[in-house]
Amino acid sequence: MEFTVGQIAEVLRGAVEGDATQRIDRLAKIEEGQAGSLSFLANLKYEHHLYTTGATAVIVSRTLELRQPTTATLIRVDDPYTSFTTLLEFYQQATRTGKRGVEEPAYMAASSRIGENHYRGAFSYIGENCEIGQDVVIFPHVFIGDRVKIGDGTILYAGAKVYAETVIGSRCTIHAGAVIGSDGFGFAPQPDGSYRTIPQIGNVVLEDNVSVGANATIDCATMGSTLIREGAKVDNLVQIAHNVEIGRHTVVAAQTGISGSTKIGDFCVLAGQTGIAGHLSLANRTTVTAQSGVGKSIKEEGILLQGSPAFMLRDSLRANAIFRHLPEVERRLTQLERNQSATEKP
Amino acid sequence: MEFTVGQIAEVLRGAVEGDATQRIDRLAKIEEGQAGSLSFLANLKYEHHLYTTGATAVIVSRTLELRQPTTATLIRVDDPYTSFTTLLEFYQQATRTGKRGVEEPAYMAASSRIGENHYRGAFSYIGENCEIGQDVVIFPHVFIGDRVKIGDGTILYAGAKVYAETVIGSRCTIHAGAVIGSDGFGFAPQPDGSYRTIPQIGNVVLEDNVSVGANATIDCATMGSTLIREGAKVDNLVQIAHNVEIGRHTVVAAQTGISGSTKIGDFCVLAGQTGIAGHLSLANRTTVTAQSGVGKSIKEEGILLQGSPAFMLRDSLRANAIFRHLPEVERRLTQLERNQSATEKP
Amino acid sequence: MEFTVGQIAEVLRGAVEGDATQRIDRLAKIEEGQAGSLSFLANLKYEHHLYTTGATAVIVSRTLELRQPTTATLIRVDDPYTSFTTLLEFYQQATRTGKRGVEEPAYMAASSRIGENHYRGAFSYIGENCEIGQDVVIFPHVFIGDRVKIGDGTILYAGAKVYAETVIGSRCTIHAGAVIGSDGFGFAPQPDGSYRTIPQIGNVVLEDNVSVGANATIDCATMGSTLIREGAKVDNLVQIAHNVEIGRHTVVAAQTGISGSTKIGDFCVLAGQTGIAGHLSLANRTTVTAQSGVGKSIKEEGILLQGSPAFMLRDSLRANAIFRHLPEVERRLTQLERNQSATEKP
Repeated sequence: MEFTVGQIAEVLRGAVEGDATQRIDRLAKIEEGQAGSLSFLANLKYEHHLYTTGATAVIVSRTLELRQPTTATLIRVDDPYTSFTTLLEFYQQATRTGKRGVEEPAYMAASSRIGENHYRGAFSYIGENCEIGQDVVIFPHVFIGDRVKIGDGTILYAGAKVYAETVIGSRCTIHAGAVIGSDGFGFAPQPDGSYRTIPQIGNVVLEDNVSVGANATIDCATMGSTLIREGAKVDNLVQIAHNVEIGRHTVVAAQTGISGSTKIGDFCVLAGQTGIAGHLSLANRTTVTAQSGVGKSIKEEGILLQGSPAFMLRDSLRANAIFRHLPEVERRLTQLERNQSATEKP
Repeated sequence: MEFTVGQIAEVLRGAVEGDATQRIDRLAKIEEGQAGSLSFLANLKYEHHLYTTGATAVIVSRTLELRQPTTATLIRVDDPYTSFTTLLEFYQQATRTGKRGVEEPAYMAASSRIGENHYRGAFSYIGENCEIGQDVVIFPHVFIGDRVKIGDGTILYAGAKVYAETVIGSRCTIHAGAVIGSDGFGFAPQPDGSYRTIPQIGNVVLEDNVSVGANATIDCATMGSTLIREGAKVDNLVQIAHNVEIGRHTVVAAQTGISGSTKIGDFCVLAGQTGIAGHLSLANRTTVTAQSGVGKSIKEEGILLQGSPAFMLRDSLRANAIFRHLPEVERRLTQLERNQSATEKP
Repeated sequence: MEFTVGQIAEVLRGAVEGDATQRIDRLAKIEEGQAGSLSFLANLKYEHHLYTTGATAVIVSRTLELRQPTTATLIRVDDPYTSFTTLLEFYQQATRTGKRGVEEPAYMAASSRIGENHYRGAFSYIGENCEIGQDVVIFPHVFIGDRVKIGDGTILYAGAKVYAETVIGSRCTIHAGAVIGSDGFGFAPQPDGSYRTIPQIGNVVLEDNVSVGANATIDCATMGSTLIREGAKVDNLVQIAHNVEIGRHTVVAAQTGISGSTKIGDFCVLAGQTGIAGHLSLANRTTVTAQSGVGKSIKEEGILLQGSPAFMLRDSLRANAIFRHLPEVERRLTQLERNQSATEKP
């Protein structure tokens, strides 16, 4: 895609200072700007980049007063950051999420319904009795099992897999390869040491505005629903086990695992590679630092946890500070023993 | 799906107490029962739920004597838990695993054979010279490479990927997105610091009744076979490297990784996010707690391990208990030094 | 596949000692050799296996002098290891990577170009305006988004997913289910505690000879490129976040996660299940042991790190050695306190 500076200024209702016929084919940070790229300057801390940038054009505030000459053409707007974000969203829609129509061969059972203005990529699959809203974008190789419900404006990227009975809200984003609704790890130990599989007949429910990362896995409930509440963000390669509940606007970073039947509150942050044991409950606004392992429920809101097993972040930092110097601690102990022993001898 | 209470009672050879014409459209735990749902009461510890449940019907023992009235219709059977599990299995088969027939377009090379009574979903792929048993369920987007063998009654969920030469036993379950037979991480360091790829020509063998979780990865052997023995359960996002052996009825929980050529015994339990180093051997019935990292072979059976690096669970718990109080340990040490120093001065 | 010993010897320009008409149908380690298998003996440390092996034939050096009789037919060559590796590569190409032609249905947009001598498996997908080199192997269910560039000789295994705008070099290997170019985890916290999604418009660039493991995920940059440099090896289930750079010939083992904007130098080794925090820089030849968590930049080259949080390997080993005996340290401390207290009393 290529636009002139003038075309972009028109969309943003901005005023051009310089050559409006110059061509823009990408967006870039101001310090990485090259010929053909458009940048923005919102924070005046970075103003010096404006005078050295290689960008063809820069979006700046209407009120900015230049302190040096710049080679870049300026687009003056009221709020450079908002204008730039608008362009980012426009760009992403133009390049990825704005697809519409059906590419053949695509499979949809006759008993299923999908709303207007959708995209169904080649080799996408929709099973029996599904109800899918409008403006839904379904990339190639997406699998949607029987009796799945999906709300308006949701995007499923290539090869996302949605098992039967799953419910997905509106404006959700499911990234490539994510699996939603796989069987929970339900195996009953038998007297001979083998395991009998317990059928998992529940489902997964994602509320609105939920994001699920690439190759993440969310198991269905044994009975009932595994529940991801409104606005929660689940990153790549996260594992969410059967009957888990993730609270509203909670963030679960990459490679974290949450064991069966655990409930995570609202506005929590679980950093990368964290593990949460099963049948626990974490209060709202709990934060768990990376690689920590939580083995107990947290009742008080706003707690910060660290370590494996995890405890209060402040205490964990202190314990770790001494851990590093354990050899010295041991030497001091040995010295004390020697001194005491020497004192006793006489 | 919808059944009457009477129809369900007939299947279970149970006796109805109440309105046999009522309609059931789901199964639920007794404490979560709602209109239209069927529950069960096996453990009398939960008998009180029977008198408050919103479930339309509850499966109970023939010998149960009611202590209060209940609004639920009862289905009396010999063994409520077994009856309910039968229903769970029936339900799962009806909704997921009972599919039969071929949805077009599906691809199967002319040189491959598959037994009777199978399902091949749209966009499923079977390469050259495969031998696949009967009652096999192959969901959409499953990839089966050349010369793969699969036993009777095995289920492959959407987008499971099976590389050439893999052997899968009977009654196995491979969940969505699992990858079986990818190249082991075989790279020989060269004098200039780069790596030469060593071709991986072995395969993966799964014996009967093995379960592989969603998006798990099992690498083929360099030569010979990576081997998952009978009844082993491998959870979501687990990584099993080249030439690993997993023993019979061993459970490997989510996000665990097992490095190359390691042998895990029978009846072991590796909890979530565990790591096992390469070229080790763990004896039968070894248990490793979550997030632990095992760096040494275990010869004695029945050992419990914890920590990274892992050692005996009991010792690990004690060491961790003191770790939390290291700042206090350090203060006590400093106090002793001061006291000793004070004693010496005079 | 089946060959005679004589046919193999001809390819390797070797001399046969024994029955050249015997049939070979697999390659095996000399200690695991069976009827029909071909092995090799390069390191004389293993010479004793030559006299007990069940292999039909063994590749040995022209200069080897037998010290005992062997039942195996010998193929004498100048360099047994190189000859055997040649066979491994030939075997892998014959069984996996040598596929050519197009299986229908396969999808490629009319605006895209692909070079000669390629394989496009059934249900593979190539979007708009892609430029793909020659000798490229694209397995079934591979997704290649719009405007992707792929160099000569690259292999994409079943179900690999490549988002729009990605650039992949020559002779790369992308394993099954890997996702390249998914959105970075970009969410701006709002005053009400919810998150606004920041469009991610950058891409991923893989240079030549890069390997990406099964179900690994590499996020696109927010702007600019996430960059995997020449010869880097990324193992299964690895997570690489937005704007990360991985240096030349760096090895990233399974289930490791690297957070946003971090730069890993050349010739580094990150062992399995390692985590690297965001916005860091690791110098060339840094080694991080398994399950470690790196929270600080490393400026000096060649450092070995361990632990979570990680510090110098040597110090970490010493601290861990004492950690195991913390209960004893605590007992010695208590004993000292008692002794001191006893000394003071009188």
